[in-house]
Amino acid sequence: MANPSLLILAGDGIGPEVMDEVKRIIGWFGAKRDLAFDVSEDLVGGAAYDKHGVPLHDDTMARAQEVDAVLLGAVGGPAYDNLDFSVKPERGLLRLRKEMDLFANLRPAQCFDALADFSSLKKDIVAGLDIMIVRELTSGVYFGEPRGIHMEDNMRVGINTQRYTEAEIERGARAAFELAMKRNKKLCSMEKANVMESGILWRDVVTEVHRDYPQVALSHMYADNGAMQLVRAPKQFDVIYTDNLFGDILSDCAAMLTGSLGMLPSASLGLPMANGRPKAMYEPVHGSAPDIAGQGKANPIACILSFAMALRYSFDQGAEADRLEAAIEKVLADGARTADLMGPEGGVPLSTTQMGDAILSAL
Amino acid sequence: MANPSLLILAGDGIGPEVMDEVKRIIGWFGAKRDLAFDVSEDLVGGAAYDKHGVPLHDDTMARAQEVDAVLLGAVGGPAYDNLDFSVKPERGLLRLRKEMDLFANLRPAQCFDALADFSSLKKDIVAGLDIMIVRELTSGVYFGEPRGIHMEDNMRVGINTQRYTEAEIERGARAAFELAMKRNKKLCSMEKANVMESGILWRDVVTEVHRDYPQVALSHMYADNGAMQLVRAPKQFDVIYTDNLFGDILSDCAAMLTGSLGMLPSASLGLPMANGRPKAMYEPVHGSAPDIAGQGKANPIACILSFAMALRYSFDQGAEADRLEAAIEKVLADGARTADLMGPEGGVPLSTTQMGDAILSAL
Ligand SMILES: CC(C)[C@H](C(=O)O)[C@@H](O)C(=O)O
Ligand SMILES: CC(C)[C@H](C(=O)O)[C@@H](O)C(=O)O
Repeated sequence: MANPSLLILAGDGIGPEVMDEVKRIIGWFGAKRDLAFDVSEDLVGGAAYDKHGVPLHDDTMARAQEVDAVLLGAVGGPAYDNLDFSVKPERGLLRLRKEMDLFANLRPAQCFDALADFSSLKKDIVAGLDIMIVRELTSGVYFGEPRGIHMEDNMRVGINTQRYTEAEIERGARAAFELAMKRNKKLCSMEKANVMESGILWRDVVTEVHRDYPQVALSHMYADNGAMQLVRAPKQFDVIYTDNLFGDILSDCAAMLTGSLGMLPSASLGLPMANGRPKAMYEPVHGSAPDIAGQGKANPIACILSFAMALRYSFDQGAEADRLEAAIEKVLADGARTADLMGPEGGVPLSTTQMGDAILSAL
Repeated sequence: MANPSLLILAGDGIGPEVMDEVKRIIGWFGAKRDLAFDVSEDLVGGAAYDKHGVPLHDDTMARAQEVDAVLLGAVGGPAYDNLDFSVKPERGLLRLRKEMDLFANLRPAQCFDALADFSSLKKDIVAGLDIMIVRELTSGVYFGEPRGIHMEDNMRVGINTQRYTEAEIERGARAAFELAMKRNKKLCSMEKANVMESGILWRDVVTEVHRDYPQVALSHMYADNGAMQLVRAPKQFDVIYTDNLFGDILSDCAAMLTGSLGMLPSASLGLPMANGRPKAMYEPVHGSAPDIAGQGKANPIACILSFAMALRYSFDQGAEADRLEAAIEKVLADGARTADLMGPEGGVPLSTTQMGDAILSAL
């Protein structure tokens, strides 16, 4: 049987640096665990724009549709800030999400014991935190039409459309309920049903899907209150299900609770392919961090943990994912720190490669 | 000259309880500081629905347009959760904001020294925090058309429209720049210009308005990063300008940084009336808190501080506002605490009235 295939799209900024460490980890699994992957690489974001004038070439899109999983680094950077909206680096990422139909974006916010002191939040509020945000990723205001800037009465008007069908809300909800069943059987759905009709439909559909998962305790919360509760008492949550835009903001808020964005992976999953694996893309939650790009300072852990999610969700290798996560916990417990994980006390941080070395030796 | 006029709309849940304390404070200013107001009262939200079948009666709306300032408590509660969207208690509040054209919603997030320990965040991250969020309040996805739930191909579809004209973005931006000029001359504008065209227009217009305020240091941030930075290092901000929906979420997030939502006031300001005063409504950021309504447990400080904002922004009584704020700081420093301001150590909290008593004696 052919090896499972991976397409690496390292992208911009620190993307290539952190992805280099992932490649070494992938190599390790091939050499030591008999888990070989066929790895190909291509461009996305600003890097693709520089070469092709578009943030995602059609050939790359086609390749992404064929492979078993895509690993993405990060897109964007100041060099591209003044580009036309339609060719911004972000459009490459959004095209992948949309055309691969990756509707369920899983964003864990987990506080690593060794790093609990590092959060902005008091230790007792975050220690042991382990929540999972399921963000709908293919619809909502990110993709709704009509959209654009046009003239009305001699004045510019900016328009975007929040649009959700019940089928879109439902399939994401099922993914969220399924996850809740495997975890603590607690799901909180967040919207603004007090202000937006799309939020009313959201609440109704989630309530209907709940009938198929009676063992799960379902609650509903307005998204503004959700942001507040995430800061006040995040451990009240297990799985959170929310829409594309709220999910963008709430997951970043939740990410920060854990102390470092450099630690957080994500999985974006779609429908099963012919081989039974879901369409899938894995990427760190952090961005391209142009301020530290090319300096070997970036923390590769979020990207490596994204590969662990790939092992778990695409390749049914939960035990190997556990092994990789345990190696990361071990190096953190041993005190390995990249610059983003250091407090004001200072000390000499590990470089990106040194952190990769440490994880490889712990494996 | 006639006394300035106030319309009190206490609303639902804890609204009437906290407003009772504000009325006593208003009485004190009339008796002791020769600052008398003509106060009238009316219904809003669920209370108005119970009596009139609508969350805001036309007569109340007309009265709100005439007075010098509206003081609002809170709206909504579980008794009204299953009402039709068009008569939900929240619609009363939104109608006031829209018809009074209160486009600039000022939401301070201030950490009171005496309460710095009470925040979820580490003390050094929040101590001395003093930021001001200016939220555009009359447009965006809250009011954009088309909206609603309709059938398409036998399926329900929920639609809302984010819509901003450059004039709407501009007038809010001017309010934000003016505030920044009076504060630390630092303004951060937040949107999702990487994903939404309305965000691109937002960024462009704010940049254009900046030309008139060259002394202000302007920065732009994506709203997801904004949520993260608010948790990571909130003191990097002075004034934040953002849209209606992002402002809803980000201001709740910022509010929670300070430890208690029971402490935070807001002002919603519109265009100047014939007497030179701006159209204005003042309300606490907290909601109707149905779980503690009617029990005398609510913290009246947010509502009292909202009246302090009225003194400052509607009545040009900055010194009297300072006096009221100082009295509140004093009682907090002396250890006065309502239940929401108590840690797990416990102790006997003050009731709503007792907190009002304490503030009155400190005045
Ligand atoms: C880069 C950007 C388009 C993206 C988004 O808004 O979804 C990012 O913030 C994310 O959360 O993955
Ligand atoms: C009650 C609700 C309609 C309101 C809003 O969404 O604006 C509230 O959350 C607020 O922030 O004032």
